[in-house]
Amino acid sequence: MLGKSGKVAVIGAGLVGSSCAYSMINQSICREIMMVDRTYDRAVAQALDFSHCMDFTHNRTKVYAGTYADCGSMDVIILTAGANPKPGQTRLDVLEEAESIAKDIVVPIMNSGFNGIFVVAANPVDIVTYMVWKLSGLPRERVIGTGTSIDSSRLKTLLSEVFSIDPRSVHGYALGEHGESQFVAWSHVTIGGKPILHILDQHKERFKHLDLDDIAKKTKDAGWEIFTRKGSTQFGIGNALAHITRSILNDEHKIIAVSAILDGEYGQRNVCAGVPAIIGEGGIQEIIELNLDQAEVEKFERSCEILSGNINRLTIA
Amino acid sequence: MLGKSGKVAVIGAGLVGSSCAYSMINQSICREIMMVDRTYDRAVAQALDFSHCMDFTHNRTKVYAGTYADCGSMDVIILTAGANPKPGQTRLDVLEEAESIAKDIVVPIMNSGFNGIFVVAANPVDIVTYMVWKLSGLPRERVIGTGTSIDSSRLKTLLSEVFSIDPRSVHGYALGEHGESQFVAWSHVTIGGKPILHILDQHKERFKHLDLDDIAKKTKDAGWEIFTRKGSTQFGIGNALAHITRSILNDEHKIIAVSAILDGEYGQRNVCAGVPAIIGEGGIQEIIELNLDQAEVEKFERSCEILSGNINRLTIA
Amino acid sequence: MLGKSGKVAVIGAGLVGSSCAYSMINQSICREIMMVDRTYDRAVAQALDFSHCMDFTHNRTKVYAGTYADCGSMDVIILTAGANPKPGQTRLDVLEEAESIAKDIVVPIMNSGFNGIFVVAANPVDIVTYMVWKLSGLPRERVIGTGTSIDSSRLKTLLSEVFSIDPRSVHGYALGEHGESQFVAWSHVTIGGKPILHILDQHKERFKHLDLDDIAKKTKDAGWEIFTRKGSTQFGIGNALAHITRSILNDEHKIIAVSAILDGEYGQRNVCAGVPAIIGEGGIQEIIELNLDQAEVEKFERSCEILSGNINRLTIA
Amino acid sequence: MLGKSGKVAVIGAGLVGSSCAYSMINQSICREIMMVDRTYDRAVAQALDFSHCMDFTHNRTKVYAGTYADCGSMDVIILTAGANPKPGQTRLDVLEEAESIAKDIVVPIMNSGFNGIFVVAANPVDIVTYMVWKLSGLPRERVIGTGTSIDSSRLKTLLSEVFSIDPRSVHGYALGEHGESQFVAWSHVTIGGKPILHILDQHKERFKHLDLDDIAKKTKDAGWEIFTRKGSTQFGIGNALAHITRSILNDEHKIIAVSAILDGEYGQRNVCAGVPAIIGEGGIQEIIELNLDQAEVEKFERSCEILSGNINRLTIA
Repeated sequence: MLGKSGKVAVIGAGLVGSSCAYSMINQSICREIMMVDRTYDRAVAQALDFSHCMDFTHNRTKVYAGTYADCGSMDVIILTAGANPKPGQTRLDVLEEAESIAKDIVVPIMNSGFNGIFVVAANPVDIVTYMVWKLSGLPRERVIGTGTSIDSSRLKTLLSEVFSIDPRSVHGYALGEHGESQFVAWSHVTIGGKPILHILDQHKERFKHLDLDDIAKKTKDAGWEIFTRKGSTQFGIGNALAHITRSILNDEHKIIAVSAILDGEYGQRNVCAGVPAIIGEGGIQEIIELNLDQAEVEKFERSCEILSGNINRLTIA
Repeated sequence: MLGKSGKVAVIGAGLVGSSCAYSMINQSICREIMMVDRTYDRAVAQALDFSHCMDFTHNRTKVYAGTYADCGSMDVIILTAGANPKPGQTRLDVLEEAESIAKDIVVPIMNSGFNGIFVVAANPVDIVTYMVWKLSGLPRERVIGTGTSIDSSRLKTLLSEVFSIDPRSVHGYALGEHGESQFVAWSHVTIGGKPILHILDQHKERFKHLDLDDIAKKTKDAGWEIFTRKGSTQFGIGNALAHITRSILNDEHKIIAVSAILDGEYGQRNVCAGVPAIIGEGGIQEIIELNLDQAEVEKFERSCEILSGNINRLTIA
Repeated sequence: MLGKSGKVAVIGAGLVGSSCAYSMINQSICREIMMVDRTYDRAVAQALDFSHCMDFTHNRTKVYAGTYADCGSMDVIILTAGANPKPGQTRLDVLEEAESIAKDIVVPIMNSGFNGIFVVAANPVDIVTYMVWKLSGLPRERVIGTGTSIDSSRLKTLLSEVFSIDPRSVHGYALGEHGESQFVAWSHVTIGGKPILHILDQHKERFKHLDLDDIAKKTKDAGWEIFTRKGSTQFGIGNALAHITRSILNDEHKIIAVSAILDGEYGQRNVCAGVPAIIGEGGIQEIIELNLDQAEVEKFERSCEILSGNINRLTIA
Repeated sequence: MLGKSGKVAVIGAGLVGSSCAYSMINQSICREIMMVDRTYDRAVAQALDFSHCMDFTHNRTKVYAGTYADCGSMDVIILTAGANPKPGQTRLDVLEEAESIAKDIVVPIMNSGFNGIFVVAANPVDIVTYMVWKLSGLPRERVIGTGTSIDSSRLKTLLSEVFSIDPRSVHGYALGEHGESQFVAWSHVTIGGKPILHILDQHKERFKHLDLDDIAKKTKDAGWEIFTRKGSTQFGIGNALAHITRSILNDEHKIIAVSAILDGEYGQRNVCAGVPAIIGEGGIQEIIELNLDQAEVEKFERSCEILSGNINRLTIA
């Protein structure tokens, strides 16, 4: 049985890691947060800055800096540290660098005796999630990538504006790669429980300006829209990480679109891609297999092919 | 435009009213709560008891006792006071008494200058909601009954146990009367976005013991199961009231199954029944018309017939 | 080491127990709540009613009914079941009955293998806390009574009204017996960090109508004011229980006035009385000894004398 | 009367402004947040990033980008945009630049019809708060600087570690300038209600290594400790801003150490410095005058002298 002490390590004290920690502090998600960074002083600085929040929050969260060697007693490790593509690097260069970084992080963490759950946000997230699985030797259900959780949230936000409703009354998923080859499973998008395809069919006039392909494109490009304007994305993904972590620590069994190692689901094996999954104290309790329509099945397969292509280039694959 | 000062009056300081207030205090939903009760001392006692919670909550909520005459500045009035059927009373007797109570409450409240939104939980809730609409003269979108919000929540809880997932990852509605003639719109129930009818079709063996009629019956009878054991239901309905109130005060536009006065929706007029609706600062912003299947359409019509039958017996209809 | 799974049992599914559970659900304090009651059906009814809240809360809390035999894996047990004085009963009769009830509860719980922390609210709370300590054989730091936590909260509420400030910006304690012989330690009451005695000294004119003895009397009688009007008190004490439990489960180390078994503190031994204490995962981490003034010291001694007198009448003392 | 619609504008979409907004979103403090920045695209990017959080939070907060001209309907404006000292600049250069920036921001905001409350975090915060007061023409109680709220929080964090208790059970203030001349009012610091000076007196041996001057120095330097390690501070101050804003919007009347324009309090006039104040819907409802000891009085006077010296150099003074 996993320990349930509510201890979370955040690896990478940069924008994503610190936003995630800040969200967990403000939402009172865990008891302790350990900040870990290659530059130890940065972890110290973030922990110190966070410690000054405690006069202003409802619950107390203990935040401190630590190292990979201190990860043995953690329940969840959130991995946000990764490679930042440099000009002139090919995709293969980036993968090589990401693999090397993942190794430098995962090996000492496993040596510390860690036996909990990894939640991975480092990009390319599907590939890094696969790397962490291979490097850690943990069962696949205990390595979870943020995958298309953030894309699904962006989809809901976009639709909430079109329909003037709360994003939490929209349901649906972006699936596949957290990247170019992702797609929206329109067959399973509902607005207040009503399939969007029915709504469009029924209200042709009212929604004549609504173009699903355009929404899907905006979903995929939303991160880019932010990135081009401020050079990073951090808050949405920080909250997605906090949400997944809460579902683990509290054993909520929420269904979230995450990057999961597939072993037969959707006809795929040895690849990691965004699929809906039940998230609980054991990590991925079960992967939900949607009845995708034929076009969606093909998009999913194509996305997995691309991901497999990248995975096959890894040394550890 | 409605005021947005976050002032809520709870009419009826009994089990449901006080549970609702307690939930709003613990969830920090509004700035002020005024408790009102026919027995003024009971309102005073509840307000006093609530005031001792403030050392232990995240936000401060001011709670005090008041009268109908103090309701003029309220944003939302939650109506929980109603008739308790006595042995020997016929259904008609109960309706008469409920109408008389509603009149005694709504008339002085409207005389106080109230111009906000009524949220009604008093039973029979669909009929009392209709009464409040007629008595208040408010536009129909500003009179909301809890309707089948609580039944829908019970449905989600029951399914969450069957599928071992978070109730909030189940979507679906009980519709129609909050009472005997209600039904579950199985055509729109999804588990993690996947239609339950597909799931059962695909996994005949795994879910062979799952009987939808039985779940629908348990949904309808869940209140009774509680009532027979402790003589009341209060917590679920208290949270449903708090949830609807938050969606109004915070203008969330959440879609919730509430009792709404129908004026053409679902082919019905001059009747009040449980339907999904977008809830925001204006009250019911829009009623969602689901594409019910033929059997469901008939159930909805039958439920409205029963409700109309009761409404037609009212003096104010 | 104590388990940290966030499992809480509430013994007694009446007004106090159910209010406490409802507060914990709405504030997302623990992962699981087990309701236990002499009348098993009442525990079932409350758990069922609570389970219908989950569609309306931020975190999921699993709530179910159980028995003493199921308490072995709990982290915290909240004891609210006790004796209700009947007309004609002497104080001694009540103590005898309370002891008998405590025995019937604590013995089977300890037999279940329970090794966590008791939080006691059953009245007379100081005496019952003592009983639970003796009956359980647990170290004294793991048996905590709500003691004067609720009286201290009432004091803050009363002063917050006088000074027109947030109760959480008032600090101070009612100490000693949760009952007639309690007193306010005015020497340690501050308003925004400023000693109230200085304020009154400086602003004689402004606060000439403020009578500290009257405030102390109102603090002590606040429960009675509620009781005479509605026959019970439940919400303030429910939140106090939730607050203490959160400080334990989250290891917050908050200082709260609780009923603690004294072993030398304040010159007292073998008695249980309301004192400020640091509450964390180990229960009472440390008792804070205030520098009471001479009059307060005497009041504390007198209160402990009364409590000791009652304790000495117990069979288990 | 102020509007109570819960609309907050954050001026400056950099680290402090975005951390503040993120904290308000995660704590559900307001209904709407408008991000405003000199670089409009940065405001757009932050609003977009925040909008992707809504699938993961309890309440919905609407976040969007806007301009000074859109500030007319806001309840609270949080000002985080200011001058960043450049190498070679004198203190006077910085003040001149800060004044020019403040003018560019405050004048168009007032022209938009704004009639709410300013909360200022831009540094040097005491001086900028004074500027905003003068430039806006608003009554002094409606211009609030974060002042020593963050230093007071740092003090509590430091003491919480020494005494192994929750920071929220420590009370006390850093006062005066949010800068070099600030000081800790040790005469009013309490640990669980017990004056720290008494504790040290009583437990000479136990706390022989505790050096109050050292703690005061660490309090003052805590920001610097963070700044030297990561080049910014943002999270603590973000939460302080959120905390002040909640106390305003919810009319909590919390006592917080903020930078207030003094008009006779503490014998000072026409200067802005960190003092405890009651914060409510009217802004600063009242300034709390502590009975500082002689040494503290002198420190406060000296701090105000320094601040006055800077204020006198302003064109608008």
